[in-house]
Amino acid sequence: MKVSRLIGSRTKETPQDCQTANHIFMVRGGYIRNVAAGIFSLYNPMRRVTQKIERIIREEMDAIDGQEVLFPVVMPATLWQASGRYDAIGSEMARFTDRNGAKNVLGMTHEEASVHLVRDVAQSYQNFPFMIYQIQTKFRDEPRSRGGLMRVREFTMKDAYSFHTDWDDLTEYYNRCLQAYRRIFARAGLADVAVVQADSGMMGGSISHEFMYLSPIGEDKIIKCPFCDFISNLEAAETIVRQTSRPEMPLTKIHTPDIKTIRALGDSLGLQDDSLMKAVVYSRVADGTPIVVFVRGDMEVSETKLRNHIGTDIVPYEETGTHSGIVAGFIGAVGLDSGITCVLDRSLQGATNLVGGANEIDYHISGISMARDLPNAVYADVAKAVEDGICPACRKEGLGITGGVEVGNIFQLGDKYTKAMKMQYLDNAGELQYPIMGCYGIGVGRLAASVLEEHHDDYGPIWPIEIAPWQVAICALNIKTDAVKTAADALYQSLAESGIEVLYDDREVSAGVMFSDADLLGCPLRLVVSPKTLARGAIEVIARDKSYKADLDFDATKTNEIAAWVTKWIAEARKQTREQVKKQANLQPNSGE
Amino acid sequence: MKVSRLIGSRTKETPQDCQTANHIFMVRGGYIRNVAAGIFSLYNPMRRVTQKIERIIREEMDAIDGQEVLFPVVMPATLWQASGRYDAIGSEMARFTDRNGAKNVLGMTHEEASVHLVRDVAQSYQNFPFMIYQIQTKFRDEPRSRGGLMRVREFTMKDAYSFHTDWDDLTEYYNRCLQAYRRIFARAGLADVAVVQADSGMMGGSISHEFMYLSPIGEDKIIKCPFCDFISNLEAAETIVRQTSRPEMPLTKIHTPDIKTIRALGDSLGLQDDSLMKAVVYSRVADGTPIVVFVRGDMEVSETKLRNHIGTDIVPYEETGTHSGIVAGFIGAVGLDSGITCVLDRSLQGATNLVGGANEIDYHISGISMARDLPNAVYADVAKAVEDGICPACRKEGLGITGGVEVGNIFQLGDKYTKAMKMQYLDNAGELQYPIMGCYGIGVGRLAASVLEEHHDDYGPIWPIEIAPWQVAICALNIKTDAVKTAADALYQSLAESGIEVLYDDREVSAGVMFSDADLLGCPLRLVVSPKTLARGAIEVIARDKSYKADLDFDATKTNEIAAWVTKWIAEARKQTREQVKKQANLQPNSGE
Repeated sequence: MKVSRLIGSRTKETPQDCQTANHIFMVRGGYIRNVAAGIFSLYNPMRRVTQKIERIIREEMDAIDGQEVLFPVVMPATLWQASGRYDAIGSEMARFTDRNGAKNVLGMTHEEASVHLVRDVAQSYQNFPFMIYQIQTKFRDEPRSRGGLMRVREFTMKDAYSFHTDWDDLTEYYNRCLQAYRRIFARAGLADVAVVQADSGMMGGSISHEFMYLSPIGEDKIIKCPFCDFISNLEAAETIVRQTSRPEMPLTKIHTPDIKTIRALGDSLGLQDDSLMKAVVYSRVADGTPIVVFVRGDMEVSETKLRNHIGTDIVPYEETGTHSGIVAGFIGAVGLDSGITCVLDRSLQGATNLVGGANEIDYHISGISMARDLPNAVYADVAKAVEDGICPACRKEGLGITGGVEVGNIFQLGDKYTKAMKMQYLDNAGELQYPIMGCYGIGVGRLAASVLEEHHDDYGPIWPIEIAPWQVAICALNIKTDAVKTAADALYQSLAESGIEVLYDDREVSAGVMFSDADLLGCPLRLVVSPKTLARGAIEVIARDKSYKADLDFDATKTNEIAAWVTKWIAEARKQTREQVKKQANLQPNSGE
Repeated sequence: MKVSRLIGSRTKETPQDCQTANHIFMVRGGYIRNVAAGIFSLYNPMRRVTQKIERIIREEMDAIDGQEVLFPVVMPATLWQASGRYDAIGSEMARFTDRNGAKNVLGMTHEEASVHLVRDVAQSYQNFPFMIYQIQTKFRDEPRSRGGLMRVREFTMKDAYSFHTDWDDLTEYYNRCLQAYRRIFARAGLADVAVVQADSGMMGGSISHEFMYLSPIGEDKIIKCPFCDFISNLEAAETIVRQTSRPEMPLTKIHTPDIKTIRALGDSLGLQDDSLMKAVVYSRVADGTPIVVFVRGDMEVSETKLRNHIGTDIVPYEETGTHSGIVAGFIGAVGLDSGITCVLDRSLQGATNLVGGANEIDYHISGISMARDLPNAVYADVAKAVEDGICPACRKEGLGITGGVEVGNIFQLGDKYTKAMKMQYLDNAGELQYPIMGCYGIGVGRLAASVLEEHHDDYGPIWPIEIAPWQVAICALNIKTDAVKTAADALYQSLAESGIEVLYDDREVSAGVMFSDADLLGCPLRLVVSPKTLARGAIEVIARDKSYKADLDFDATKTNEIAAWVTKWIAEARKQTREQVKKQANLQPNSGE
């Protein structure tokens, strides 16, 4: 490819709305163009990167006996009604009515489609286990799309579905896939992706893991124990709370005019946060009914944990004016209208002498002892873990929190979908059984963005050899000079004929522009041809990561020797990647797995 | 791949709703599964076929300097409003409103997106020409989806967009692309795709061609002249009409109670069809206003030609009850309400003594002479060409009509989109100019279906070597026999290690089932290992197309020799394809081009 023909411009200016290195360089380097909120077009260099990632994924999925298939983007609502998710999922799922009045959805995941594909053709235990996967466009109407390809609404995803006759087989395959994921990330350039215990959310099932590229830019919060090897998504971790013992006191109604927040209440009464009982109200997406969550004043509700506990999608409650029994600002667990769904967090279990709302305007109640005043209460774990909190594995205090970008996830789904969609097989005793499933996702664009985030300097991306848009860039300085043009042309041809992916900057631009553009395009190796290098009978070779710089003897009739040198260099770089991958594969899984 | 693990079942029964060989074998062979009207999932064998087609397309697009990019499936309505197509296109385009209330469309083509991608980065004549392409899922809410992958609503398409500074450059590139398309089709297995003059429809522009796989199953109608090399889509061809000369007669109002069809009118008056003036009413999709088309009684209106003439989408008119000025059944050109848009087909030009409606219930008018009674009439060519009609090229009578499947199309768009979307560049005189565009599409699934239609026998597909899901199938008959299993396992391993794509039927099934399944999977070469062949120290090799059958000496320690033989056989088959491609490339373009 000649740079003079490459579509997409490169700029020095940092665009205003870009905060992270990956976003900045993708815009500055001519990799992506924003079309709408969370929707992008990809220029050729980015498409080359994603295609290489897709190739790595295919190779690794095929290596664990995956069969590539293709599901549709547009699916009939009936398919999603069969699993119950048509109603359970909220506005994240795009829906439209077609010309015949039929309701359709845009695929955000394909569990239903995968069961539909195999239901009638895997009816004997002898057909199991198997795994099918696809690489395809998905749409998720994400409210918080931002940061370039990091969090988008439309994205390319590899999603895989495995089917098994028993949990042992699923577990074994799940672990094979986990290792395949490590190889994929390492090959793409993320050597140290953390495998963390995750929330399985709307997917159903119990065990699931996320592959987290740990980075301050990550929007996910990962908790790590400094004492043991516990690591987890903050939203998935069990929260361990220690109760402060306080003497019991009688229930007392107190007048608290205009005090409507927990902070104001604590301040006005001179109480610490953990003496307060906080109420947070949500409403069910499906029917709008409210759910009141009570949590100790020093804790926060995890919407994810709450969602899983309730088993349906929720949104923050908005006062509608209709009589709900909820007295905003003064909601309390004691004396709450028994018609309202109420969830008590475990942080309240056994607590004594708390202050909470009185369910009456301008009144709170003090002296609440949970065991005494709410003797029939059932507690759930719906609070977020906190920094310096207690590790649920080793029970030591001092949890750390770090940012993470979720580049992949794997789930043990069990029979949620096969049961709902009535997929059965005959086992070897002739009995009908529901298969159990696993599912496995990787976001291609987010992975590319993470690799860029991990591998860049002040001037642009330093693409790893396996996913670089081109392996080599030729910079022909002062190409108006006949000698330079002849030499660079010959070099370009030799390299291309040797099967090397080469980008040739053949423009009449200054050395400054040429080098800064080359930095932005980030090819691992650069060959510089200039009147100066030719005068000393050489071209200059520089690694993009600055690990190597040298002169190579140049003879216009022997450019094939340079091509051979470059081929060797690429092979060496690839070898290093393979060694990195091997090291990953030998890693012991951490306890979160 | 082992057949015991391959997901998808093969059946002997022909499914009821399948009419064509390609559809029958795709269902019977476990290639596709219907998800909703015109929406399919692909099993692994089909995905392998489409991936190989995609690879061929990429190679040929890259060879004509194409740059692969990726546009989004979901696009904001604003992008389509900019070109005017948001309103011009009807219910074929799927639309939805997202969670923020913004209107979106699902991409059915990407002219707007391509201009959006390059508008800000191709501002100098030096950036031109260039071509960008993508391979991606599209959705078109097609009312007549049927026939498996032949006519679907969701499909994978390669769409390409080229940008030029002048028409000569576009024409030159257009012809390069036309040749690339011939190579693509020939490589995929369609050696004789006809290149026909086409209608450019909603794409805009003037010159366009369709690549037609000529087959009785094709829904497109292609007209061919037996005397010259004229070939065209029926909907795009100019219609040449000869006028019968008849004496002029005075206008006479005639009472024709209850005669509301042209057929009934002709019968009741004893007149030939070409003595009648037929009215067909449409309405504009945009605002519902009616358009009355008059055509000679022996001709049919071409909706496509009418749509192009009017410049907006139309649908058959439905009486709404509101006062429209239209007297259904008795509409005539003479005395029609001047507020109604009226289109006169050229078949009426110069006609004399016609009978048409009187715009009054139960009355017609006879003796209509167009020149005398409608002296200011303007005529348009909106009638369909007819079988045995006059060739617009050589003017001889005797046009033939044949079926065609449109596997690709190319368009010279001109500046329709760049002008509408204000994309400009500075020419070498420093003046602002609008670039002109070409666009180029291939439907991947339809191409696969056409290849299957062209290459099959009574038992299944005979996949061409370049796109076969696997190159070789091993059938291990009586695999319970140790000798067979050992031999087949060794053979499988040797072939796979030699880089051959091999499907290994390792199931304990009868020879009948194994062979009929192998026929349905259609791999070009089959290796049969059985107690019988081993007893004579051999395996049997059979080409799927029956062109070859022989014994190969088998020695379990020298399976690599068989792998070498197979490698050579594949290379030979590929060579034949390349020769076919060369022959195509040397073809003179026919006059339609």
